[in-house]
Amino acid sequence: MINVELLPVGIIGASGYGGVQLVRLLAEHPQVKIAYLGGDSSAGKPFSAIYPHLAHLINLEIEAIDIEKIAAKTKVVFLSLPNGLACEIAPKLIAKGLKVIDLSADYRFRDLETYTSWYKKDRSDLELSSNAVYGLPELYREQIKKADLIGCPGCYPTASLMALSPLFKQGLIVPETAIIDAKSGTSGGGRKTKTNLLLAEADNSLGAYGVAAHRHTPEIEQICSQLAGYELKVQFTPHLIPMVRGILATVYGTLRDPGLVREDLITIYSAFYRSSPFVKILPSGVYPQTKWASGTNLCYIGIEVDPRTNRIIVMSAIDNLIKGQAGQALQCLNLMMGWDETYGLPQLSFYP
Amino acid sequence: MINVELLPVGIIGASGYGGVQLVRLLAEHPQVKIAYLGGDSSAGKPFSAIYPHLAHLINLEIEAIDIEKIAAKTKVVFLSLPNGLACEIAPKLIAKGLKVIDLSADYRFRDLETYTSWYKKDRSDLELSSNAVYGLPELYREQIKKADLIGCPGCYPTASLMALSPLFKQGLIVPETAIIDAKSGTSGGGRKTKTNLLLAEADNSLGAYGVAAHRHTPEIEQICSQLAGYELKVQFTPHLIPMVRGILATVYGTLRDPGLVREDLITIYSAFYRSSPFVKILPSGVYPQTKWASGTNLCYIGIEVDPRTNRIIVMSAIDNLIKGQAGQALQCLNLMMGWDETYGLPQLSFYP
Amino acid sequence: MINVELLPVGIIGASGYGGVQLVRLLAEHPQVKIAYLGGDSSAGKPFSAIYPHLAHLINLEIEAIDIEKIAAKTKVVFLSLPNGLACEIAPKLIAKGLKVIDLSADYRFRDLETYTSWYKKDRSDLELSSNAVYGLPELYREQIKKADLIGCPGCYPTASLMALSPLFKQGLIVPETAIIDAKSGTSGGGRKTKTNLLLAEADNSLGAYGVAAHRHTPEIEQICSQLAGYELKVQFTPHLIPMVRGILATVYGTLRDPGLVREDLITIYSAFYRSSPFVKILPSGVYPQTKWASGTNLCYIGIEVDPRTNRIIVMSAIDNLIKGQAGQALQCLNLMMGWDETYGLPQLSFYP
Amino acid sequence: MINVELLPVGIIGASGYGGVQLVRLLAEHPQVKIAYLGGDSSAGKPFSAIYPHLAHLINLEIEAIDIEKIAAKTKVVFLSLPNGLACEIAPKLIAKGLKVIDLSADYRFRDLETYTSWYKKDRSDLELSSNAVYGLPELYREQIKKADLIGCPGCYPTASLMALSPLFKQGLIVPETAIIDAKSGTSGGGRKTKTNLLLAEADNSLGAYGVAAHRHTPEIEQICSQLAGYELKVQFTPHLIPMVRGILATVYGTLRDPGLVREDLITIYSAFYRSSPFVKILPSGVYPQTKWASGTNLCYIGIEVDPRTNRIIVMSAIDNLIKGQAGQALQCLNLMMGWDETYGLPQLSFYP
Repeated sequence: MINVELLPVGIIGASGYGGVQLVRLLAEHPQVKIAYLGGDSSAGKPFSAIYPHLAHLINLEIEAIDIEKIAAKTKVVFLSLPNGLACEIAPKLIAKGLKVIDLSADYRFRDLETYTSWYKKDRSDLELSSNAVYGLPELYREQIKKADLIGCPGCYPTASLMALSPLFKQGLIVPETAIIDAKSGTSGGGRKTKTNLLLAEADNSLGAYGVAAHRHTPEIEQICSQLAGYELKVQFTPHLIPMVRGILATVYGTLRDPGLVREDLITIYSAFYRSSPFVKILPSGVYPQTKWASGTNLCYIGIEVDPRTNRIIVMSAIDNLIKGQAGQALQCLNLMMGWDETYGLPQLSFYP
Repeated sequence: MINVELLPVGIIGASGYGGVQLVRLLAEHPQVKIAYLGGDSSAGKPFSAIYPHLAHLINLEIEAIDIEKIAAKTKVVFLSLPNGLACEIAPKLIAKGLKVIDLSADYRFRDLETYTSWYKKDRSDLELSSNAVYGLPELYREQIKKADLIGCPGCYPTASLMALSPLFKQGLIVPETAIIDAKSGTSGGGRKTKTNLLLAEADNSLGAYGVAAHRHTPEIEQICSQLAGYELKVQFTPHLIPMVRGILATVYGTLRDPGLVREDLITIYSAFYRSSPFVKILPSGVYPQTKWASGTNLCYIGIEVDPRTNRIIVMSAIDNLIKGQAGQALQCLNLMMGWDETYGLPQLSFYP
Repeated sequence: MINVELLPVGIIGASGYGGVQLVRLLAEHPQVKIAYLGGDSSAGKPFSAIYPHLAHLINLEIEAIDIEKIAAKTKVVFLSLPNGLACEIAPKLIAKGLKVIDLSADYRFRDLETYTSWYKKDRSDLELSSNAVYGLPELYREQIKKADLIGCPGCYPTASLMALSPLFKQGLIVPETAIIDAKSGTSGGGRKTKTNLLLAEADNSLGAYGVAAHRHTPEIEQICSQLAGYELKVQFTPHLIPMVRGILATVYGTLRDPGLVREDLITIYSAFYRSSPFVKILPSGVYPQTKWASGTNLCYIGIEVDPRTNRIIVMSAIDNLIKGQAGQALQCLNLMMGWDETYGLPQLSFYP
Repeated sequence: MINVELLPVGIIGASGYGGVQLVRLLAEHPQVKIAYLGGDSSAGKPFSAIYPHLAHLINLEIEAIDIEKIAAKTKVVFLSLPNGLACEIAPKLIAKGLKVIDLSADYRFRDLETYTSWYKKDRSDLELSSNAVYGLPELYREQIKKADLIGCPGCYPTASLMALSPLFKQGLIVPETAIIDAKSGTSGGGRKTKTNLLLAEADNSLGAYGVAAHRHTPEIEQICSQLAGYELKVQFTPHLIPMVRGILATVYGTLRDPGLVREDLITIYSAFYRSSPFVKILPSGVYPQTKWASGTNLCYIGIEVDPRTNRIIVMSAIDNLIKGQAGQALQCLNLMMGWDETYGLPQLSFYP
């Protein structure tokens, strides 16, 4: 193999699930080296004290967050922090000439008023924010290639938008009929110790949460509105599923043209995602299982049309921590660097 | 306690999950004794060979299905058989003067053409079938009290109808907007050894099945149409969840009156189920967890209204094997015998 | 039913898993009423705010811990608190003439030096402690009947001792060969929000912990030594299993008499537990599943002898929160009150 | 990359879990191409009909088993068949000059009488069998390099032997004290539809099986005896754990030298596995979680010494389908071909 100079990257917030996925994926990426791991509460600890199973791979300590040091060591930084922190750090990193890929909600919104009203945090970085690109390569590939600051989508929006985009882009459904009934494994809640995420509570149980009020709603609506060309609202209901990884979004919409059949829609979706290597449109009658996507950056999409009700039902399955988080961030990095979009990203799940 | 004469009951199909639930519940019922267990493939085996943990309780052998013997030993028979078998056996039992409570789909339909078109079985027992009562006590309590033959609802229809009935009965939603996104544990698939029900396949995964084509759809539509007063269609999508027990139905509908708020709906539901001891309408902002209902005959209902979209979202949680199957059958028996509706039916789950 | 005067009982520490089990079980007990729920961090909250699914049953508020009030309202108090707190409270309750059933480790030890060395807390209540009875009815039924203060066994010791007691009592194994390889669901860790108990961490994984160092070791050794008549040590290794409830103890010992066969041992165990209604010795070749005991106060015991190695392997399965905790406490109460030992205690699991 | 000629390999029994792992791993191997997939009941089906999530990767049909065709297409064949079938096929493939890597029990035994007595099948291929090499690279690396026929270890023996080998090889424990308490996810039972492997049965439950009678016992004993230099017996107890993948073997033995401490043993193990890239000896006080090994070919080993009982407790964790099956087979292939032992084998699990 030709001797390449590896790109030095950093991760701030390396101790959470987003962080450990990034470490895992970047460690196998052929053109990247992890040059810095940063954190707050875990600063000073070796990374292997938090994730002992990676001790044979990662011999780094988590360092305090020092912009000068980060700028000296890295060229690209991933921010994997709770909402409301990236917008304090990213401007400083950008000012140093670094590229920033943020996994939080801070740079997902065109309209910071929407951000502030849902996330309860005032923002002053309007200009920087307006230059950020929404990191969903299947929709914004070209913009991502040229961006310095990426706001990576939420896990639910990723699954939802993969299912909804062709419908809104091509005006196939009556917009106000769009309903997203989404289901996620508990790793979506992060490594926070909340009672409802305990195995004893969450296992063998199932419930909805954030009904009509989840913060991912405005994010989905922003992109759908952009695709449709006018402001619209969607119904979004997340559910907590007794499993570790995976999101399934079951999306409903009433077709504008009652003559469309399942095969038509499969054709439309296949064309829409023609250049998207991670999207797999399933054949007629096959519906996705989240396990198929587990451990990969893939999104499997199954499509059904109900002629009795004139509705389309689209099911999209992703790994919430990979295509829904760290893998997608890496996919953005590949595009920003001009590399092959699939570089270092797993495409084969282990089954079962 | 006064010395009561116990009602002798029989169970045909005792070896499946419906059967073992019935055995479990009937064994604790204060006015019933299990006088007969019948089966086909398991005939001749002691019940404890199939369920060793109940050996200290049940000392019965599974017998071949012999109508004369059953009539001699029992007064009420539960049929817990695959679809299409009860309609061969029930007429003979009824002819002997027994009461029959069928857990399959055979006696759920007013219109046997609908049955035949979805279940692919011709039927000749039109008269008997037309006398059968749909065994959902919350809707048909008075008819059940007088019935000799009960067609117990499916597990999904039970959860779905508990959530939908007030809406259709009182004309609260635009009928064609009703969508049921239902989620079930794998015990709903019975004790059949199908590959997709293996732990290795089903655990840590999630998917929809029978999209736009599940047999419980016409059953739900039949009752909703009856409540609404005209024929209507609903969208019903079942999902397989990596857990043993429980169903959550997340039901969506567009409100006819945009002025209704959540508290209005909670009041309406509470009134509707005023006399239904097993239905628990949750307070504002509380959504049901299936675990709460596990091991009980309860149905927990949570209600949300989204003023942004003018939709109501109702979530109902049951134990698919109890309120969704054997418990409901026993609730019907209580009514048929003139007993207290709650007799012998658990109302307290173990948590966690 | 004859009008009985119900015994007023209190629970201190009602918000944890031990507490909610007690509430659940006591609520169905025919001779008890819950007169007081106490707690520290949860004082002032209605119980139903913590466990909403029980709102239809329990209309009590969790009160601050006030000895005078407790003494005025109750005759028996269950203490379901972290280790090291009961020994501060129990003496005051006993002084008021109440009976106390403690679910923590505080009153399990004859020798308080052992307690102090493993639990790192000095103790001054020597006299009271020496009057406490170890609440394992299968071994200490007669003493429990006369006791005012019960130190209920830990969950692991319960499962372990049920398997080991006949062996040590009757000198059947070489003592120093006893090994207990124990496996527990995560509810054994309580409702504490520890990272390793999150579903995302604990599900689909398995590991040992506290190897050669778990605090339940001296508790098991104390009882085994008492049964054997001399001081002995056992090997005890706990494992965390990806499930909610249940403990399986797999116990190994080398037989002193190489002529003993499996059936001999089954006979010996059956005789040993002849008067113990909750112990079920399984027939030859049947091994217990923890699910069989789930939601019950039962202990299932399976026995195997390996003639190749001259070892006995005993497997005992319990529900860690019932026979391993709250159910056993209630079993003790029944004995202390002179009631039937099985009163209000479930003996039938729901399956599957 | 230099243009290499890819090695054409075949898999017979591609539809089971062993098969799909092999397909998954071989598809990413840089020097191999899958040239043939064979099966019996699934012959004629496209592989993607059985595993739809791999449709984008594998465009092969499962073919009937025809020795001539296999010989024409491949140079190495993996046999992933039920026990007792490989010994019918392997001789024919070997006669054609192919190399054979068998994942069943057929070529694991030096002594075919032992095989026949445990597996109930007579054998006539004595000569071939005596040339087969036991495919555990950590013990038989040099022999594997020169072999034409490999009998890959069972999943339990792999985990057990990784923990036991240093102890027996170096005479550290009293041999007859060795006890292996092993725990496996249900995928170890294969894709067979057995009732006890249903999610509804196996989830949230736990039990031992094959106590004192499991077929992996003689396999473990054969290797341990070879290491120790004389015939010995071990105690082996497998348990079914409610999870998909993973084996943990908890191994007990009484130390011959009571002066050895934990750090001594860690040093000894580290030296023993010095040249084994897939074995990770954990630092003092760290015990392995099966999840760490999931999706990798790694074996994590944790070591504890109990000075109270003079016992060593060793815990080894593997992915039963990778290091315990398909990954190990591929590791053997790498050695047989003279490639790097780690080629194409994953070393990083996804976590959580």
